[in-house]
Amino acid sequence: MSDIPSKINLKEKLGLISQPWQPGLVARVNDHLVKLVKLDGEFIWHKHDREDELFLVLEGRMTIHFRTGRVDLAPGELVSIPKGVEHKPEAEPGTAALVFEPEETVNTGDAGGERTHQPDWL
Amino acid sequence: MSDIPSKINLKEKLGLISQPWQPGLVARVNDHLVKLVKLDGEFIWHKHDREDELFLVLEGRMTIHFRTGRVDLAPGELVSIPKGVEHKPEAEPGTAALVFEPEETVNTGDAGGERTHQPDWL
Repeated sequence: MSDIPSKINLKEKLGLISQPWQPGLVARVNDHLVKLVKLDGEFIWHKHDREDELFLVLEGRMTIHFRTGRVDLAPGELVSIPKGVEHKPEAEPGTAALVFEPEETVNTGDAGGERTHQPDWL
Repeated sequence: MSDIPSKINLKEKLGLISQPWQPGLVARVNDHLVKLVKLDGEFIWHKHDREDELFLVLEGRMTIHFRTGRVDLAPGELVSIPKGVEHKPEAEPGTAALVFEPEETVNTGDAGGERTHQPDWL
């Protein structure tokens, strides 16, 4: 058996995602996962009590709203959202991002609800 | 004090790096760090006994050599190198990559030596 890991082409993997706000898994790094997500419109306010969460925009434009301001992200820009900080993602149609977070992190954080999505491997 | 995290523009941060193979830090996500590195030519064979390490190519072309093969990476492609697996990065001039790895990971792994670099924040 070869011990050579597989390479992941982000554009190819993004092509496998049909629904916005439903992340898919592309890689594991220790106890963290790399996820891809398409974003379109507004998500919900939530926080992750125990985990920081990183967004790196690949395509489009997104905003992370915070209770006291906002961060606007274009392709090639990232932000690491500290644990416990409430945020609400919002994005233009056609936006895609890479997310890096612990494997236990759920997309809707403490808010839960119908937009909660358990990601599968792409 | 604002709790809004700063956004990081990867191109701007890459502009602050002058030497290849000397990673700089751009973000923390829990116990992992996001690093940027410029690569040019051959690095050394090494492994990280306890940590997986992810490379995402941003510019240029790189190859990760393994004892039993190789993985060639273009911009938008990534690979997660499992802990304990020997590898040797090699890159065309002008190559840049984002690296995700635990904060204790050293660039030369178990090999050590003169190319070991302790990264600073960019």
